[in-house]
Amino acid sequence: MNDKGTLIYYKDAGLVSEVFNDTILDHLKGKMAIGHVRYAPDVKDDYRENVQPIVVKYKAGQLALAYNGTLVNAESLRKEMEEKGAIFQANNDAELIASLISRHRITSENIEEALVKILNDIKGSFAFVILTPHKLIGVRDPLGIKPLCIGMMDSAHILASESCALDAIGAKYTRQVNPGEIIVIDENGMRSIQTGTTGKSRFCIFEFVYFARHDSFINGVSVYEARLEAGRRLAMEHPVDADLVIGVPDSGLIAALGFSRQSGIPYGTGLIKNRYVGRTFIKPGQGKREIAVKIKFNAIRSEIEGKRIIMVDDSIVRGTTTKMIVQMLRNAGAKEVHIRISSPPYKFPCYYGIYTPSTDQLVASSFSKEEIKNLIGADSLEYLSLEGIKKTPIGLEGDLCSACFDGQYPIEPYFGEEI
Amino acid sequence: MNDKGTLIYYKDAGLVSEVFNDTILDHLKGKMAIGHVRYAPDVKDDYRENVQPIVVKYKAGQLALAYNGTLVNAESLRKEMEEKGAIFQANNDAELIASLISRHRITSENIEEALVKILNDIKGSFAFVILTPHKLIGVRDPLGIKPLCIGMMDSAHILASESCALDAIGAKYTRQVNPGEIIVIDENGMRSIQTGTTGKSRFCIFEFVYFARHDSFINGVSVYEARLEAGRRLAMEHPVDADLVIGVPDSGLIAALGFSRQSGIPYGTGLIKNRYVGRTFIKPGQGKREIAVKIKFNAIRSEIEGKRIIMVDDSIVRGTTTKMIVQMLRNAGAKEVHIRISSPPYKFPCYYGIYTPSTDQLVASSFSKEEIKNLIGADSLEYLSLEGIKKTPIGLEGDLCSACFDGQYPIEPYFGEEI
Amino acid sequence: MNDKGTLIYYKDAGLVSEVFNDTILDHLKGKMAIGHVRYAPDVKDDYRENVQPIVVKYKAGQLALAYNGTLVNAESLRKEMEEKGAIFQANNDAELIASLISRHRITSENIEEALVKILNDIKGSFAFVILTPHKLIGVRDPLGIKPLCIGMMDSAHILASESCALDAIGAKYTRQVNPGEIIVIDENGMRSIQTGTTGKSRFCIFEFVYFARHDSFINGVSVYEARLEAGRRLAMEHPVDADLVIGVPDSGLIAALGFSRQSGIPYGTGLIKNRYVGRTFIKPGQGKREIAVKIKFNAIRSEIEGKRIIMVDDSIVRGTTTKMIVQMLRNAGAKEVHIRISSPPYKFPCYYGIYTPSTDQLVASSFSKEEIKNLIGADSLEYLSLEGIKKTPIGLEGDLCSACFDGQYPIEPYFGEEI
Amino acid sequence: MNDKGTLIYYKDAGLVSEVFNDTILDHLKGKMAIGHVRYAPDVKDDYRENVQPIVVKYKAGQLALAYNGTLVNAESLRKEMEEKGAIFQANNDAELIASLISRHRITSENIEEALVKILNDIKGSFAFVILTPHKLIGVRDPLGIKPLCIGMMDSAHILASESCALDAIGAKYTRQVNPGEIIVIDENGMRSIQTGTTGKSRFCIFEFVYFARHDSFINGVSVYEARLEAGRRLAMEHPVDADLVIGVPDSGLIAALGFSRQSGIPYGTGLIKNRYVGRTFIKPGQGKREIAVKIKFNAIRSEIEGKRIIMVDDSIVRGTTTKMIVQMLRNAGAKEVHIRISSPPYKFPCYYGIYTPSTDQLVASSFSKEEIKNLIGADSLEYLSLEGIKKTPIGLEGDLCSACFDGQYPIEPYFGEEI
Repeated sequence: MNDKGTLIYYKDAGLVSEVFNDTILDHLKGKMAIGHVRYAPDVKDDYRENVQPIVVKYKAGQLALAYNGTLVNAESLRKEMEEKGAIFQANNDAELIASLISRHRITSENIEEALVKILNDIKGSFAFVILTPHKLIGVRDPLGIKPLCIGMMDSAHILASESCALDAIGAKYTRQVNPGEIIVIDENGMRSIQTGTTGKSRFCIFEFVYFARHDSFINGVSVYEARLEAGRRLAMEHPVDADLVIGVPDSGLIAALGFSRQSGIPYGTGLIKNRYVGRTFIKPGQGKREIAVKIKFNAIRSEIEGKRIIMVDDSIVRGTTTKMIVQMLRNAGAKEVHIRISSPPYKFPCYYGIYTPSTDQLVASSFSKEEIKNLIGADSLEYLSLEGIKKTPIGLEGDLCSACFDGQYPIEPYFGEEI
Repeated sequence: MNDKGTLIYYKDAGLVSEVFNDTILDHLKGKMAIGHVRYAPDVKDDYRENVQPIVVKYKAGQLALAYNGTLVNAESLRKEMEEKGAIFQANNDAELIASLISRHRITSENIEEALVKILNDIKGSFAFVILTPHKLIGVRDPLGIKPLCIGMMDSAHILASESCALDAIGAKYTRQVNPGEIIVIDENGMRSIQTGTTGKSRFCIFEFVYFARHDSFINGVSVYEARLEAGRRLAMEHPVDADLVIGVPDSGLIAALGFSRQSGIPYGTGLIKNRYVGRTFIKPGQGKREIAVKIKFNAIRSEIEGKRIIMVDDSIVRGTTTKMIVQMLRNAGAKEVHIRISSPPYKFPCYYGIYTPSTDQLVASSFSKEEIKNLIGADSLEYLSLEGIKKTPIGLEGDLCSACFDGQYPIEPYFGEEI
Repeated sequence: MNDKGTLIYYKDAGLVSEVFNDTILDHLKGKMAIGHVRYAPDVKDDYRENVQPIVVKYKAGQLALAYNGTLVNAESLRKEMEEKGAIFQANNDAELIASLISRHRITSENIEEALVKILNDIKGSFAFVILTPHKLIGVRDPLGIKPLCIGMMDSAHILASESCALDAIGAKYTRQVNPGEIIVIDENGMRSIQTGTTGKSRFCIFEFVYFARHDSFINGVSVYEARLEAGRRLAMEHPVDADLVIGVPDSGLIAALGFSRQSGIPYGTGLIKNRYVGRTFIKPGQGKREIAVKIKFNAIRSEIEGKRIIMVDDSIVRGTTTKMIVQMLRNAGAKEVHIRISSPPYKFPCYYGIYTPSTDQLVASSFSKEEIKNLIGADSLEYLSLEGIKKTPIGLEGDLCSACFDGQYPIEPYFGEEI
Repeated sequence: MNDKGTLIYYKDAGLVSEVFNDTILDHLKGKMAIGHVRYAPDVKDDYRENVQPIVVKYKAGQLALAYNGTLVNAESLRKEMEEKGAIFQANNDAELIASLISRHRITSENIEEALVKILNDIKGSFAFVILTPHKLIGVRDPLGIKPLCIGMMDSAHILASESCALDAIGAKYTRQVNPGEIIVIDENGMRSIQTGTTGKSRFCIFEFVYFARHDSFINGVSVYEARLEAGRRLAMEHPVDADLVIGVPDSGLIAALGFSRQSGIPYGTGLIKNRYVGRTFIKPGQGKREIAVKIKFNAIRSEIEGKRIIMVDDSIVRGTTTKMIVQMLRNAGAKEVHIRISSPPYKFPCYYGIYTPSTDQLVASSFSKEEIKNLIGADSLEYLSLEGIKKTPIGLEGDLCSACFDGQYPIEPYFGEEI
C-alpha cells in the first residue's frame, strides 16, 4: 500500500527466492502488506491467474486477498454468481470470495459488514486476510477448521496462519483468531467482530498431526508438545520390545522422541533426509518414484544394523513411501521393523483441505491393519487411537475435526460434479 | 480450444519469439484460435493481468477476448458495473467488455444477443474477437473507427485487423467487417448480424496515414495506393524545386515515391533505418533521446551532399525527431531541406486510440507552420490539406474520422477524472 | 577495464536487448571497451564458450579479443598448438589466436611484437580487436579481406568493422586500417605498425554486394554509391523493356534505384519486408520454409498488377527464396518478371567467410543461367558482369577478392578434414 | 559421451532443478557421465567460465574434469604455465590441471601416464574425476586430504566424493580411493595405478566434523558413528549436570545424541531449522544477519522452558550464530545453557579447503575459552580434546590432517600474493 491509497504488488509462480529480488522488494513500500506462499499445484493454463494474493478493483476501491482453505459450496456459489453476471478469470476460492465481497459491499456500509454477510453463505474451511488501502482484515471460518493467529511487533499487528512466522520476524504471539471472528486492523488499532458462532469449534486435527511446523502454537497449543505427547501415548497404547526408536523425518521425529521417552527405549537418528532435492524433475512411474524416495531418504547402517527398530511416523496415506523406507531399514540390517503411527488410520478423504487423495488411494480405506502391515513389510503396525490423540493437549481446546479418521464431517461435503 | 470444450491458452508479456516455443505451441491444439500482440505499454503492477486475450469463466462457460480500441465511457461503465458488484483484476477495456457480456448473457438466448445489447452501451472505437469453445466472433464498432476484416483459407474463416496478416498465412481477403457488424463463425459456417447502424462510418484516417502496414487493404482500400496518392497530391498542392525526394523510413517512403512520380524529381534513399535496435535500454533525457535517433537513422552522404532535398514524412507529432533528421541531412551536406508532410497538421488529441500525446505535446497545437519550420530548421514546410487527403482512395469509402486534424470528434470524448 | 588494471565484462548468448540491462551496463565502467555481436550459429554444447569477446589470462595479464573472419589453417595451427600442450575450451579462431598470442608473448617485448609474429602464421581473412588493461589494439589481415576502420569522437579513438557504427555514436570516420596494419591505442594516443605487406589487397567484394550496411564507408568507398552504380551498370549491360523496377528488401533496394535511374523506368516499392519476424520458431522442412518467406515478404498488388516488373536483387545463392518471391509477384498480377542481379553468378564457395553454403547448394554452380531462369520462373534473368562490378567505385581501391564469382582464391583454401 | 566419441554436455550456474529439465536430460545420452555441484561462490565476471565440469579439447581429444580441493601452489604453477604460453579463461584449479594434463600428455603414452607426472607437481588437497570419450578416471591427492570413493551398480563403476551419493542411486560402496591412487575405468573394467605414496595419509578431520553428510562412509568409517562417538567422548570429558541435551541442526544433532546416550541426560529437539529459507536475499549488516538467524532457527519453548540445557554443536567458527542461538534459548526460558563442542577450538585457517575465514575471523584464534563463553553468553563452554576426537573411529584410519585445530599443516601453505 503506497501513500496514494493504491495497492502495489508483485507476484509470480516460483520459489520466494526466484520471484523476489532486492529491486522488487525496494519497490514494495508501504505501511501494511500481505505475503503469501503455498504448495504449487500442477501447472495449468491459468496457473498465473491463480497466484495469490488476488488483487481486484471493485466499488469501494482496491482489495487484495490471500486465502487458505476449501469451500465445499464453491461450485454452487460460483454458478449463483455467474447467474448474476459475474466473470471469473481463475478457478480458486479467493476470486470467488472477492466477488462475493464486491456484491455484498453494494448494500453494506463498509467491508466488514459485507464480510459478516458472506460468512452466512460460504461453507467450508477457510482463513483469509484482506488488504485495502486503509485496512488489514483477517477472517476465520465459523468452525475454526483452518488456523489463524494474531501477533504484535512493537505497535504493529500481525496475522499469520502459524505462530512460527511471528517468531521468524521477532513478533510476539497474542492469541488465536476465534472461529467466526473477523479482525480489523487500521490506523485506530485492532478491533474484533464476532459473527454468529454456535460455540462449537472443529479445528483440523491433521494440522497437529502433519501440516504445522513443530515450533508453532496453534489454538494456543504447542504443536511440539502435542506431537511429543502423541508419541508418549502411542508407547503406552502399543508398547513393543525393541532396541531403538527412530522417526521418519521431519514430521515423525517428535512423536518418536515421545515414544522413546515414554518407553525408555533409546532414541536414534537412523533415517536421514536429503534437504537439497528441491523440485524433482523425475518423471512419474513406479520405478522413478522409488528413485525419488531413495534420493530423499537414507538409512544409517551403523545405527540400524542388528537392531530391532521402532519406526514412528505421523500417518500412512498411500503406503508406498512407508514400504520403501521399511525396505531401506532392512537393507541396512534391521532385525525387526515395528511401525508405530502417531494418529489413527487415515480412512476418509478430507473435503476441507486442498490436496487430498481420493478414497481409493487411501490404503487404510481398503485394507485392514494386518493387510497394510504385510503390504509394507513391517513386523508389526499399530496406530494411536482417536481417544489417545484427543488426550494430547490438542483435545483440551474443545471439539476437533477428525473426519479423516472417523468420517464425522462437521460440514456436509458436496458430492456434485466437482472434479 | 480442445475437444472437451474448454479453452487452452498460453500468454505472457514479451516478444512473440520470447513467449512461445515449440513445446508451448505443440500444447496449443484445437480447431479455433485467437492470437494477439500489441505495443507494450509501461510496466505496471498489473501488467501480467493486462496481457490479452483475457480468458474468463462466466454463466455460459469459457470465453477469451482480444481487443483493439478505446472506450470513451469505460470509466463510467466500470463504475456502473462496480455498483452492481463486479470486480476487475486488470484495468483494460477487454475485461470490462467481458464483464458486460457476462451481465447481458443472463437475459439473452446466446452470446450474440448479449453482444447486440452491449453495443448500445459501449461508446468509442473498438474491434474485438471472442472465442468460446464453439464459436469465433468478431465485433466492430458502430462507426467503424477501428479496422477488422474477414479472410478465408480453404474452408476456414479468419478475422484480422489488417489484411497483411491474411497474406502471411496464405489466406484470401474476403471483405471488411462493416461498422456495427457482428460476425459469428461456428461449425455451421459464418453468419452476420448487422446491429442498428446509422449508415455513417467514421474510419480512422490515421490508420491510412501511419498505423497500417503498406501491404494491407483496409475498408477495401490499398494502404499503399492511398499513401502513394497522398504523396502525389502533396506534390500537386505544394511543389518545390529540388534535386531529390526522400522519405523517412518506413511510414514516409511510399508518399515520397508518390511525390517523386508526380513531380518528376528523382526518388532517393538518402535516409536509412537501423532495423536491429530492438527495445532500447537508453534512459530518457534529451541527450539520450538524440543518441537513440542517431542509432535509429543515418543519412547517406553520397546521396545527399550538395543537393536540395525534399523530405517526405507521414506526420509531425512532437517535432523532435524531425528536427534531428533535418540536422542529420544538413550534416550530410544537404543544400536545402524541404519538409513535405502527407497529412494535415496533427493538432487534436485522439481519444479513440491507445497512446496519444496530450495537446501540449502536439507541436501543431501550439505553433504555426512557420514557427514549426523554424523549430525544425527546414527551408520550407508544407502539409497535405484535409481536402487533399480525402481525395485519395481512402475518401471514397465514405466518412472518415479526421478528428486529429480538424477536431470534429464523432463521439464526444469524456473529459472526466481519467488519468 | 577498471581502475585496478583488470578487465570487467559481461557476455551471453541472445539479443543485445536480452543480454544487457541498466544494472549490468552500470557495472561496466572504464576508459576502454570492446562490444561484439554476431549472427548466432546453431546452438551446440559449447555455444556459451563461443560467445565473444573471449577473455583470457596469460603471462602478461588479461586480454579480451573480439574477432571477425575465418582462418584457413586453423585446424593445423590448433593441432600444432595442441602438440605443444595447449588446451581449447571452445572451437573458434578467437581462442586459437589468443593462444598464439600467449605463446609468442613469451619471447616478445610486448603484445605488439607478438602480434607481428603471429601474422606470419595465421592464414585467412580476419580483423580483430584486443583489449588489455592498458591498450586497445586492432589488427587487419595482410590482404585486407575483412573490413576494419578507425574513427574519432572528441579525443577518443574508435575501431569498428563498418563506419555506420561510428555514425551511430556521433564519431567521425578517420580512415580504414590498412591490410596487415596493427593499430595500437593507449594513453599516449594511436600508433601504427605496418607489417610486411606485398602491397596487394584483396578486399571482399561481397561486403559491398551484401554484407555491409548501405550507410557504411568501406575502404573509403560509400557502399551506397557502389550499389547504386552497380544498379546503373546492370541497366546498361542488360536493359529490358518494362514498367516498374523493384528491389528485394533490403539488400537489393539501392541497386534497383540505380537501375531505375539509368533506365528511366519508374522505381517502385512493390515488395515489403516484415520487420518484426524476429527469430522464427518455424521448424525446417520445405513447406515450413515457404511459410517463413510468406511471413517475411509481401507483394503490393496495386503497384504490381498488370505490370512488367524488373526485380533487382544483390545475388542468388540457393535460389529458393527468389523462386518464391517471383511466384508472389505473379500472384499479385505481374505480367512479366525480369530478374536482374547486381553481381555475377555466385559459383564458388567462400573459404574466408563464416557461413557459406557448399558448392552443391550454390545454384549457379550446377545450373546454367537459362536453367536457373526456368527454375525460379522468371521471364528473363541477367547478372552484372565481373568487369561491370569492378567498374563501380569499389574497383578503384585496388584488387578485390572475387573468388566467389571467379574461383580465384587469393589464399589457398584448406581442403582437409575440416567439417 | 555419445557414440561418435565426443563429449556432450550442459552446465550452468544455478540450482540443479533450475539448470536441468527433461528436454536437456534427454539430450544427454551416453555410457559414461560426470555430474558436479558445488557451493556457489560470489558472482564474478567469469562465474560462468568457472562452472564445472570444465570441458577442453587438447592433443588427445576431448576431456571433461570436475574437481574438489585447493592447490597451494596453484599460483606458481599457473605462472609457470603462462611462462610457457598457456592461457586461462577462468580462475580455478580445474582449468590449471587440464592445462597440466595437456602439457604432460605430449610426452606420455596415455592420459594415465600424464596424470602420474602431474601428481609430482601439484601440491595441496584434491580429488578429481576426468571423462574422456573412452575413459572415466578418478584421482585422489597423495595425502588423501579430500575424500573419493568407489561404488558399483550392476556392472557399472561409480566414483563419488561421499558414499551417500551411491546410496541415492542404489549403488554399493566398494572402497575408498587410496591417497595418491589413480582409478581408470574403461570398457575393460577398472584398474588402479598407485603413485609413489609415502604411506602417510592426512585425511581432513573436518570432513567428519562438519562437511560430510551423516549417512556417508568416508575412508571406510561411518560419519554417523564418528559423530555419535564424538558426542559420547565429549560427555566423558566434560560432563555437566543438566536436564536436556539438544543439538544445533543439522551438524550438531548426532553428537548431541551421543552426549545424551553417554550422560543419560534426555535428548530433545529444542531447536528447529527452517528448511525452506533457500538463497536468502537479505542484505549484509549486523541487524540483517540477526533476522537471517531468526528465520533459520527457532526454539521450542515447551521443550526448553525451565530447563538446564546442554547445547551441542560441531564447531564454533565466528561465534556470532552461536551467540544468537544461546539468546534464543534464554528467551524460550532456558535456566542454564551449557555449550559443548564436539571438536577442538578452530584456531587455524585451512589452506586446503575452499572457503575458510582468515585468522582474525576465527573467534578461537583471538579469544580464550573463558572469553568466548562470555561473548556468547553461555553458562559453560567446553570443547572435545584433539586426543578425544582421535579416539573416535576416524582415528583408526591412520593420520589425519588436524591443522585447523593444531596448526600442523601437512603441506606447507603458500603465503604469497594470493588473494
